[in-house]
Amino acid sequence: MYRGNFDISDYVEERVALAHASFDATDDSLRVSLARVAGGRADLILRVKADEQGATIDFEYAAPGINRLWWRVQAESDEAVWGCGEQMSYFNLRGRHFPLWTSEPGVGRDKRTHLTWQADVTSRAGGDYYHTNYPQPTYVSSTRYCLHAQTTAYADFDFRRGGFHELQFWAVPERIELLTARTFVDLVERIAARFGKPPRLPDWVFNGAILGLKNGRDHADTLLAKSREAGVAVAGLWCEDWVGLRITSFGKRLFWDWKWNETRYPGGKAWAATLRADGVRFLGYVNPYLCNDGTLYAEARDAGYLATRLDGGDYLVDFGEFWCGVVDFTNPAASDWFAERVIGKEMLDAGLDGWMADFGEYLPTDVKLANGVDAMLMHNAWPTLWAKVNADAVASRGRTGDALFFMRAGYTGVQKYCPLLWAGDQSVDFTRHDGLQTVVTGALSSGLLGNPYHHSDIGGYTSLFGNTRTPELFMRWAEMAAFTPVMRTHEGNRPDENFQFWQDAGVLSHFAQMTRVYRALAPYVRTLVDDAEARGLPLQRPMFLHFEDDRATYDIHDQYLYGPDLLVAPVHAAGAERWRPYLPAGARWTHVWSGETFEGGARVDVAAPLGQPPVFVRAGSANEAALLAIAKA
Amino acid sequence: MYRGNFDISDYVEERVALAHASFDATDDSLRVSLARVAGGRADLILRVKADEQGATIDFEYAAPGINRLWWRVQAESDEAVWGCGEQMSYFNLRGRHFPLWTSEPGVGRDKRTHLTWQADVTSRAGGDYYHTNYPQPTYVSSTRYCLHAQTTAYADFDFRRGGFHELQFWAVPERIELLTARTFVDLVERIAARFGKPPRLPDWVFNGAILGLKNGRDHADTLLAKSREAGVAVAGLWCEDWVGLRITSFGKRLFWDWKWNETRYPGGKAWAATLRADGVRFLGYVNPYLCNDGTLYAEARDAGYLATRLDGGDYLVDFGEFWCGVVDFTNPAASDWFAERVIGKEMLDAGLDGWMADFGEYLPTDVKLANGVDAMLMHNAWPTLWAKVNADAVASRGRTGDALFFMRAGYTGVQKYCPLLWAGDQSVDFTRHDGLQTVVTGALSSGLLGNPYHHSDIGGYTSLFGNTRTPELFMRWAEMAAFTPVMRTHEGNRPDENFQFWQDAGVLSHFAQMTRVYRALAPYVRTLVDDAEARGLPLQRPMFLHFEDDRATYDIHDQYLYGPDLLVAPVHAAGAERWRPYLPAGARWTHVWSGETFEGGARVDVAAPLGQPPVFVRAGSANEAALLAIAKA
Repeated sequence: MYRGNFDISDYVEERVALAHASFDATDDSLRVSLARVAGGRADLILRVKADEQGATIDFEYAAPGINRLWWRVQAESDEAVWGCGEQMSYFNLRGRHFPLWTSEPGVGRDKRTHLTWQADVTSRAGGDYYHTNYPQPTYVSSTRYCLHAQTTAYADFDFRRGGFHELQFWAVPERIELLTARTFVDLVERIAARFGKPPRLPDWVFNGAILGLKNGRDHADTLLAKSREAGVAVAGLWCEDWVGLRITSFGKRLFWDWKWNETRYPGGKAWAATLRADGVRFLGYVNPYLCNDGTLYAEARDAGYLATRLDGGDYLVDFGEFWCGVVDFTNPAASDWFAERVIGKEMLDAGLDGWMADFGEYLPTDVKLANGVDAMLMHNAWPTLWAKVNADAVASRGRTGDALFFMRAGYTGVQKYCPLLWAGDQSVDFTRHDGLQTVVTGALSSGLLGNPYHHSDIGGYTSLFGNTRTPELFMRWAEMAAFTPVMRTHEGNRPDENFQFWQDAGVLSHFAQMTRVYRALAPYVRTLVDDAEARGLPLQRPMFLHFEDDRATYDIHDQYLYGPDLLVAPVHAAGAERWRPYLPAGARWTHVWSGETFEGGARVDVAAPLGQPPVFVRAGSANEAALLAIAKA
Repeated sequence: MYRGNFDISDYVEERVALAHASFDATDDSLRVSLARVAGGRADLILRVKADEQGATIDFEYAAPGINRLWWRVQAESDEAVWGCGEQMSYFNLRGRHFPLWTSEPGVGRDKRTHLTWQADVTSRAGGDYYHTNYPQPTYVSSTRYCLHAQTTAYADFDFRRGGFHELQFWAVPERIELLTARTFVDLVERIAARFGKPPRLPDWVFNGAILGLKNGRDHADTLLAKSREAGVAVAGLWCEDWVGLRITSFGKRLFWDWKWNETRYPGGKAWAATLRADGVRFLGYVNPYLCNDGTLYAEARDAGYLATRLDGGDYLVDFGEFWCGVVDFTNPAASDWFAERVIGKEMLDAGLDGWMADFGEYLPTDVKLANGVDAMLMHNAWPTLWAKVNADAVASRGRTGDALFFMRAGYTGVQKYCPLLWAGDQSVDFTRHDGLQTVVTGALSSGLLGNPYHHSDIGGYTSLFGNTRTPELFMRWAEMAAFTPVMRTHEGNRPDENFQFWQDAGVLSHFAQMTRVYRALAPYVRTLVDDAEARGLPLQRPMFLHFEDDRATYDIHDQYLYGPDLLVAPVHAAGAERWRPYLPAGARWTHVWSGETFEGGARVDVAAPLGQPPVFVRAGSANEAALLAIAKA
């Protein structure tokens, strides 16, 4: 690991087909013993239980020395496959393989771009198409089944072969689960039920945008006022610098000792209360590390709550001129301490209504953990442990469904705890593998696996090597965000070098318009939240979820249904004046801005000037009139 | 394949340890049957014959379906390994793996350089440390053995493991051979005997430099005169454009129809005779392709001498706006035709005394060949077949040891046919993986495997993306070339954009000095040629060849012994005024330019201005006085 980027390689001693099976049936299951040679000793014993809704395959026994498994699943040549967590580059995974290991997603994520190359050379950080904060060994097949592997081991799902998928695991999994259903909607419901549903999205978010500001209290007050004056509807302020800064040679970083910084935010708690009375929630920032020059680190270390070196010594992770301890969430007392002492006391009790719960991807593989499990196996488990710590803290104050934290890291089980995903750190551009469009892909893939709520940094985050945000990029991103559950801006990693929405009257006005569109959508979106709560359906949906028979929708990664009745095709290119969305077959679609209606089953060509993102209402739907009215918001 | 660059990947069905052996001894050999399980059917049967000089392991039987072999060889933790053909980046191969597949070597060859990235992105041509025109599945171990695998299959030799080397083959080899000896010199002699020794280097090369000129006859005449006036000793002119040009959007290419172009070289044959009478040999260019708009293509196609598509149709290789047929050297009649009709008649009979025998790496893997063997297996065999065609042509005119062709491609067996290697297409720079120093690495690794004669393009060849040759680079390269068997210049791939030696009086004078040094060395170098002829020892030798006990020499890739008595440490950095060569322990070394003598076993710091390459004479050697005299050449 180098700052969240991993260099992963393997040396395979043997890879042996266990081609000889013997069977032992009981009333409710089948025991399968697999051996290398006919009549030979079993190397692997499975127990299979099947019913009309799918099957489970429990791994009962693996011979000593077996520490890898390659599992083949029959595939059809025209089969599409989706999921594997939150995938940012490809929605249909067929034709590629996907290593599943939570990590930094990469900067550029495309070895053919100069940006990626620079990130690779300077900090090993370029990434590739499969890098994601949120992997999950679960996929959905177009043949109407979902396969989930219950394991936290490193995995690599390979969808490149014609006749089979091959799932590689760096440990024998506990279980493989197969869920089946007649329709995609039913299948997604079953998946959501399997992993557990998150709390309902709090209603206060629909008041408007959450403004990401990070330059102290005066900056926040000033820009809140300026934004409101310009007609921006505001639901909250998100100030990640609430903890104060640390100046390094890299630039301004946060001080990772999680409590109000009174210099930067004088009277923080009282100020937050004032904001709240004014209808504006205050959100902060936290991550699972504690800097070793902070007070919380000392507390945690003294109590034995930190992961250690294998020899028991202090383990400190280098974050670039500062060093942090890793709170050991495999120790229930440490998790409780973080939930109560840090998030409970320093954040919820101190006036915070939400926060970015950052990181979760960085568990080093060479730490010693309290539960005695190899960190190679706990690494992927960490995001969910981290989500649970946050959820427990919120629950401890009775704030579930009200206080809102958002995470980029995830893994199996995060669905139940994390109320809102955020799409991580896009570059401030329109690029294929690290720009605006990757947010849609991330929402669609994670949404299929039981994550109904997704959003992103409006305008993107990462600005490196002279790549900076344009006003146009901000506007296109805001246009998309209005059609997602949460609108939240971000100043980016280098605020001073990048365009900010308040710096141009035209952009500010455009942004205000988009917050009005967002508010106008709220009644409809609340029905989608009902759907999410009751059935686990995502708000942003792949088109095939409601148009099963239109295979042309299977590969489209850059547009979505927002609930059953809206189709959103965000513009993700600079200088675009028109756009050519695909409209699913089997319905007629009315273009929100022109009122023109099109027959589905083809791409259509529509004007898409700034302020008029390509959005279509399903003709004849109950919500038709209300949704068409957003054009006048 | 894309223009000589290959994208190679594999899918391994099974990799099974054949851990159960049974033995059957005869008088002179041991038959070993290897099975998956004790008492099971043999999957692989070997016959081992051993004596005090090594062993052979013949593969007598492999079960149907076995198409890969991973062969482990016990290794010691401090063992060094060299060879694997002509390796350009690393001399000691330990710690890395080396795919063995003849191909373009790459431009930049280092994923961390911008040049490599640009070459990759624009033409998949960046390459990596292991890419080479001349791979060979043969290595030399510091534990005093050589392992050779007799196969032409794709292979990957992996020297990364602590306790073993692992040799991967994409076919079961015919044989593995182990040669052992008491000393490195004896071992190299045995290796040279195994692969066959090339003809003796012709004595005429010692007359001076071979000038690479490629802009028609007037250009050649003018620059020959100008060079001689400046005191440059000239042995030959090498004009690759003797066949005329083809203008493409990429730039000037050669016309691949191998015969004199009378427009560009009026009266070519007579002119070559005039040059020869004046003591200057004429050299041209040929490669194994025939452009489909040339007359030779039509001849070869009509005679059925070209490789075809699998369905029997014409196979044409895209070389960038022109298309070529592949002469099928597995057809003896086609080889004879190329040797007699092309090289014999159009080249040797037409006045050529030598040529660059280019390419050999490009056999596509999807052609149908006359011998019925899969092109995947013939690809690596091609360079040696190509070398034999050239050698046969030379022999047919009784010119062996006189006419001189030089090749960059190679494989097992090329040693016997190819009289001179050339180090391929370095970039015109000092970079670690594609610059001047790679020539030394290439000479050392190939030299250990029975290739005594090596040289390079003075000044480098490849100039792309604004990377151009400096006068300093040319001078440093000439300084090295004076201490190699052949001095030959090259205008590079873009002559007009790159520095040429005649463009600056100072450089011309420096070059003249280096040709005088080269000539002054000739009496000594002839004794090295005697060594090569009698024993197969390379002229450029790894230091450990004569200093077995100094392990510090095992890793050094950028300096060499030129015969037993000279140590050469070429300057390979811009702006260097001093240099710090390592002098082997066990001798005293006299710096040629200062006369200062140093004790070996350490690095020394010496002045290394232009014109004074770091060269040392072994104190007390028989040649000491003569070698020290080169300082006054």
